[in-house]
Amino acid sequence: MCLVLHNTYEGQTCSVARTLEVVGERWTLLILRDAFLGVRRFDDFQRSLGVARNVLNTRLQRLVEAGLLERRRYQERPARHEYRLTPMGRDLWPALVALMQWGDRHSGAETGPPLAIEHRGCGGAVDDRRICEACGAHLALDDVRAAPGPGADAAVRERLLTPTA
Amino acid sequence: MCLVLHNTYEGQTCSVARTLEVVGERWTLLILRDAFLGVRRFDDFQRSLGVARNVLNTRLQRLVEAGLLERRRYQERPARHEYRLTPMGRDLWPALVALMQWGDRHSGAETGPPLAIEHRGCGGAVDDRRICEACGAHLALDDVRAAPGPGADAAVRERLLTPTA
Repeated sequence: MCLVLHNTYEGQTCSVARTLEVVGERWTLLILRDAFLGVRRFDDFQRSLGVARNVLNTRLQRLVEAGLLERRRYQERPARHEYRLTPMGRDLWPALVALMQWGDRHSGAETGPPLAIEHRGCGGAVDDRRICEACGAHLALDDVRAAPGPGADAAVRERLLTPTA
Repeated sequence: MCLVLHNTYEGQTCSVARTLEVVGERWTLLILRDAFLGVRRFDDFQRSLGVARNVLNTRLQRLVEAGLLERRRYQERPARHEYRLTPMGRDLWPALVALMQWGDRHSGAETGPPLAIEHRGCGGAVDDRRICEACGAHLALDDVRAAPGPGADAAVRERLLTPTA
């Protein structure tokens, strides 16, 4: 398949490699990050990411083909579509949390984490096993909410406001 | 910095983006995977990955500059070096486990996971929070070992034999 050719890791019988074949392209994990934050529409992804529209279009199409996003019509005339995480896409949440937490810890930003995720139930912070630091609950995606962290800038705040219910 | 220029995500105040700026390049996460499995020497990385030597060299150098790997001399004449994970590099373990587990679950391989990680203490499987399924221990990197899984091929078995103590 031409689309994925330069993204394969031949000779690698490895689940990390297989995952990267699906999500390892530039921008793809950031598209998914936005989807987890509630972004659904092309223009909102585009504004959040500042990526060229053709690149965004290719990446979204690839994520739909791979089964991580579903393209759904939300308006008839004119026809408009949005992109929603499938169960397979939602299963990437632990990986995204882990990548975010590494960046929080090691990115060297003096300002602190741009994004805070916390347990909806009690407001507790989420540890590196996705366990609530306050109440000990084992958290799934729907149990948490994202809020601007101490290092949030205007773009982060806008990204968090973007989602359409 | 020229080296990282095409790897930056401008305008993204985001710890996922910052992490990808360090580890998002093609091959980089697979180099780290090998390092977690105990690979340390250039030729062993090269054989495991099958990547061009100049690409491997650039990626290793970048990981050293970023502070994830340390280049250490292990032989004097001729001078030979090996690459070891730093604490910052080791901190990526949760993210790699999460990426691997997603691939195990969704890569569509009929044969099952190529690699199994298990609790050294009791042999229990490692769940998606890196908790031992058998005894409930919260596992860190040094608490687990990797073994060929049901989907392992000859390359995986060789990769697991590669490490020099």
